[in-house]
Amino acid sequence: MPAGEFDLIDRYFRPLEGPGGRARRDVLRGVGDDAAVLRAPAGQELVAAIDTLVAGRHFLVDSDPVAIGHRALAVNLSDLAAMGATPAWALLALTLPAADEVFLSGFARGFGSLAALHELALVGGDTTSGPLTISVQVLGFLPPGSALCRDGAAAGDLVFVSGSVGDAAAGLLLEQGCLAPRAHLAAEETALRRRLLFPTPRVALGERLRGVASACIDISDGLAADAGKLAAASGCGLRLEADELPLSGALTAVCGADAALQLALTGGDDYELCFTLPPGALAELPDRLAAADCPVRCVGVLTAAPGIRVQRQGKTLDLPTAGFDHFPNVDI
Amino acid sequence: MPAGEFDLIDRYFRPLEGPGGRARRDVLRGVGDDAAVLRAPAGQELVAAIDTLVAGRHFLVDSDPVAIGHRALAVNLSDLAAMGATPAWALLALTLPAADEVFLSGFARGFGSLAALHELALVGGDTTSGPLTISVQVLGFLPPGSALCRDGAAAGDLVFVSGSVGDAAAGLLLEQGCLAPRAHLAAEETALRRRLLFPTPRVALGERLRGVASACIDISDGLAADAGKLAAASGCGLRLEADELPLSGALTAVCGADAALQLALTGGDDYELCFTLPPGALAELPDRLAAADCPVRCVGVLTAAPGIRVQRQGKTLDLPTAGFDHFPNVDI
Repeated sequence: MPAGEFDLIDRYFRPLEGPGGRARRDVLRGVGDDAAVLRAPAGQELVAAIDTLVAGRHFLVDSDPVAIGHRALAVNLSDLAAMGATPAWALLALTLPAADEVFLSGFARGFGSLAALHELALVGGDTTSGPLTISVQVLGFLPPGSALCRDGAAAGDLVFVSGSVGDAAAGLLLEQGCLAPRAHLAAEETALRRRLLFPTPRVALGERLRGVASACIDISDGLAADAGKLAAASGCGLRLEADELPLSGALTAVCGADAALQLALTGGDDYELCFTLPPGALAELPDRLAAADCPVRCVGVLTAAPGIRVQRQGKTLDLPTAGFDHFPNVDI
Repeated sequence: MPAGEFDLIDRYFRPLEGPGGRARRDVLRGVGDDAAVLRAPAGQELVAAIDTLVAGRHFLVDSDPVAIGHRALAVNLSDLAAMGATPAWALLALTLPAADEVFLSGFARGFGSLAALHELALVGGDTTSGPLTISVQVLGFLPPGSALCRDGAAAGDLVFVSGSVGDAAAGLLLEQGCLAPRAHLAAEETALRRRLLFPTPRVALGERLRGVASACIDISDGLAADAGKLAAASGCGLRLEADELPLSGALTAVCGADAALQLALTGGDDYELCFTLPPGALAELPDRLAAADCPVRCVGVLTAAPGIRVQRQGKTLDLPTAGFDHFPNVDI
């Protein structure tokens, strides 16, 4: 094995075992053996997710490696957030064409900054050569019985969404050159691109929703599609109020109101949480949110009748068709 | 999302949640939500590994999908075996060019058969489009403090290897057409190819070595290289006795004695265990092995002097050079 490549992997990834320079005491064996040995907290349930990013599909091939590293971890933390879990550990399977130091150092910086923010340790992994593909597996914990599942809601439950939606889709149009940049909107455009490149997993919000939300999902494929999955899993339909969707000022400034609405409904990659509350639980929400540092908005209600309906000023809108996606990520 | 692709994923992978048709009671939420929710056994340590297979690098692109599915899980179970852990759950990240039913059904059959053998549940995953790349993440358990690590051995400890070594490397030469098939050796050639395509992770052996082996590693890069890693991690050198290496009858028949020895020392992909025993623990071995159903052979000893030496009939051999590997899998 060429010593240089081993050294590169070791130099950039071993420090991530101790997030923010502090080792987790529950990592008994981390990087450097056949497998990691971990001490799960007594009496908690274990939560596990895996997600893959492929170059040219989940990020543009010339993306900043820092953003790729951030995103590879963020999409997985978002899955844990959607379950209400507290992240603890990650494993990384990195396939890359060459041991490129510029890529590795940037990737590790992006991954490591987000890991440190959540006190998450990289406890093992594997690198190999091939087309750039990144799978991250994350492990977290929950008090018994407190998981936020997709199928726990009932007709009449109110539908909420965190942060703002549609921004990442607009950021992608800008990155791809489908929206021409305009000098007087440079700050807004930068904000939208940043929402695409550095998504914020809503971990604290997910934790605070345990025991109060009836169901939860993260928004990767667009609000309508993902809220629709939650509704269907709960045996319900869904009515969304278009005028209630949380649109950022940047999104409406750059895209205009109509396109903003379409992107908010069907654009993916926001990694906000969509969750439901029984009307009786509404009073608990403000206290819960105070600690989560993330705005939420009620955008609709689950219905007994199946299907997704979008209303605007009392009229039913045709749901805009999402972009053609010939082979979506499909959960197993 | 085209319904057909979702159905394919669901049809072939959902059944693997219940290995051999029986659901594990410790899977609280498996396939179908944002993440899996699992109940770890009280008082045990958690063991986690991830390994990636890339088409054209870790298997030939025209390989039988059943073998690819088997191998993707086997290499990961081998990592758990090397720690002495008992497997429980897996997650699968599958990137493939198209939702090809022939591939998916074969892959799921190979993966599922091996999973059922170890009562392992597939609890989640992700499929996406791109160049064929498979990452599997496995989770298992250990009694506290019983992990078999690479760094626990000392000079004077005896070095053992399970099964036979070199077979998979000979199988690869046959698969690649570098060794011409001969009619009178057809059975032996089939046996060698099978060792490459359907490696047997030594899970029961690993479990039985807890508390007796001082160190352990699985052989993926070749006996000399991997035993060398174990020795170096333990601050030792290594002397191997060439005449003691366990060579299968098929290997010597197909390759001849000299090439067989070279493949046994440097050929990869056997997924046997290489472990060390303090001489005082030797008496315990027969009882332990009775339950493991796998032969082992003492092939050398750890030395205080660093480096790897191979002896044959009292003379030191030059260690054959391993095949050129421009970008090996590197553990994180």
